[in-house]
Amino acid sequence: MEYRKLKDQDKDEDPTGDDLESLRGKALSGVPVNPLSTLGGGPSNRQWKRKSIVTLALTILTSSQSILIVWSKRAGKYDYSVTTANFSVETLKCVLSLAFLMRIWKREGVTEDNRLSTTLNEVSVYPIPAALYLVKNLLQYYIFAYVDAPGYQILKNLNIISTGVLYRIILKRELSEIQWAAFILLCAGCTTAQLNSNSDRVLDTPVQGWIMAIVMALLSGFAGVYTEAIIKKRPSRNINVQNFWLYIFGMIFNAIAIFIQDFDAVMNKGFFHGYSLITTIMILNHALSGIAVSMVMKYADNIVKVYSTSVAMLLTAVVSVFLFGFHLSLAFFLGSIVVSVSIYLHSIGKPRR
Amino acid sequence: MEYRKLKDQDKDEDPTGDDLESLRGKALSGVPVNPLSTLGGGPSNRQWKRKSIVTLALTILTSSQSILIVWSKRAGKYDYSVTTANFSVETLKCVLSLAFLMRIWKREGVTEDNRLSTTLNEVSVYPIPAALYLVKNLLQYYIFAYVDAPGYQILKNLNIISTGVLYRIILKRELSEIQWAAFILLCAGCTTAQLNSNSDRVLDTPVQGWIMAIVMALLSGFAGVYTEAIIKKRPSRNINVQNFWLYIFGMIFNAIAIFIQDFDAVMNKGFFHGYSLITTIMILNHALSGIAVSMVMKYADNIVKVYSTSVAMLLTAVVSVFLFGFHLSLAFFLGSIVVSVSIYLHSIGKPRR
Repeated sequence: MEYRKLKDQDKDEDPTGDDLESLRGKALSGVPVNPLSTLGGGPSNRQWKRKSIVTLALTILTSSQSILIVWSKRAGKYDYSVTTANFSVETLKCVLSLAFLMRIWKREGVTEDNRLSTTLNEVSVYPIPAALYLVKNLLQYYIFAYVDAPGYQILKNLNIISTGVLYRIILKRELSEIQWAAFILLCAGCTTAQLNSNSDRVLDTPVQGWIMAIVMALLSGFAGVYTEAIIKKRPSRNINVQNFWLYIFGMIFNAIAIFIQDFDAVMNKGFFHGYSLITTIMILNHALSGIAVSMVMKYADNIVKVYSTSVAMLLTAVVSVFLFGFHLSLAFFLGSIVVSVSIYLHSIGKPRR
Repeated sequence: MEYRKLKDQDKDEDPTGDDLESLRGKALSGVPVNPLSTLGGGPSNRQWKRKSIVTLALTILTSSQSILIVWSKRAGKYDYSVTTANFSVETLKCVLSLAFLMRIWKREGVTEDNRLSTTLNEVSVYPIPAALYLVKNLLQYYIFAYVDAPGYQILKNLNIISTGVLYRIILKRELSEIQWAAFILLCAGCTTAQLNSNSDRVLDTPVQGWIMAIVMALLSGFAGVYTEAIIKKRPSRNINVQNFWLYIFGMIFNAIAIFIQDFDAVMNKGFFHGYSLITTIMILNHALSGIAVSMVMKYADNIVKVYSTSVAMLLTAVVSVFLFGFHLSLAFFLGSIVVSVSIYLHSIGKPRR
């Protein structure tokens, strides 16, 4: 499958600026196309604001997600079926996207860009990230058989490298030498911040654990980059429509997983067996995080997503000091310094063209 | 005291290129001054080679220095007088400088640049770094009363920051934004590489330990930067002459220290009481390291010195795996990655002018 080379969002903040589909969409929706609007501060500023808001939302949701996982793990092992929880997350995301869409229809009417009906050409690529995310989500629960939680946190940082590499290969977008250096630092800094006295044990992770971690990193990176490619392929298409179709396939794939893995349990004990308040909160949080990720893909990119979730990790640690009485280690401070320098270098190291 | 703004050695590899004193010196020594020689690859290439060799020598000597300290500490506490050891180091450096100088006299004859006699104007600033180094060297042995060896290694990284700041303030030489970021990373990376399960204890260092560490960092940084200023003030002056005077004052200050601290012990037990083979090797190593530092100041700068000693620290750890059966931790690998990226960023981040 071929994707057109996406232009640099950082340089040209308005991705709809010179896009044919976008112009068509705008004309259909009755908004006059004003070529000067992209030159003024207005739309670019709005884009920047939107980018900041979705990034901030993702950061906060991701950091609370980790806290919820710690919390639910404290309560013991998972009593509920993981597959039904994932299905619930996808369904909730689908419902929320539809709700957002209905508000937009009420306000703006149905246009070419926000209509739900689609073509086979548009929808044919949507199952792929859903399938990848499904496998990754399932692995996320099973890897704990081989790696403890701090070890998993450390191995998860492989995502950073895989995302950077796949972003470069698949989206063909350039990172400058300084930005590559910043990316390596981000990975090293996040890992450093998570070091504790038992971290060296991660070097003794069994082969299955390593393979699962690397496969998860590649799946996660590929799913993320692929989603960005799909969403950005049609910049003027409403994000809620794109999300709706993405999540519909998420529901289908998770339904398949329920049939394969938990059919008997669901039949005997019921779909919502073992759901607690914390389970419900986690599902809500996962759903909102998922939507935030899509928004970041639409208005920013995978690199911003990776930085956002890295900062979320540092935030989680600081919040955990208050919630769970965690102590911040020297390693955490050092890692935070390295991550901060990485963010700075990424921002000043934009490729010249 | 005022120092002329030194030009950027990285850009203009030949510091003698357009220096008045240098031209005078060359004319006196009978070597015809060829203005084209600085344009060809020759002298610049020789300068680069010399810079590389002295940097490599410093790296190797510093890394073996740390190994010797670990070794001598394993043998128990210091039985010899620290002040006499420091005096011996200064004397040895002085003797070696004189020996190098005599070889040069034999080969090139006595010139304005390599004659030992000096003016009050030239020599008046030499006691200052000697005095600073003396205080720092004494503190180096006493700080172990408050901090353990790994803690001291961690606190020593404050040197990196103090050197960078004083280098900027006193020598008025610019570092680019990227090079500053690299410098912060160097400090964080070195500290990370030295983390172990007890490192968090360093945060509990008593106030005396912190004060000593900060004072040592400032003394070390100031002495280093001041020495560079003195040595570079007369680029054509032979480094061995400059070293000779530097070390003469080192001898004087350390003699004073013997009188103040160890007069009775030296009188009763003798000057060389408690000297073992390892003590002698350490003195020889310190002397050679000291000369290498001067050479780096002459042909490179304090920033190169800091990078060199940081790499030496990493080398020490790797060598210690074989010598003392040390294990390399995950933190060491992460710190090494950060230091490597820092070196890369420093090299690509030269200030534009």
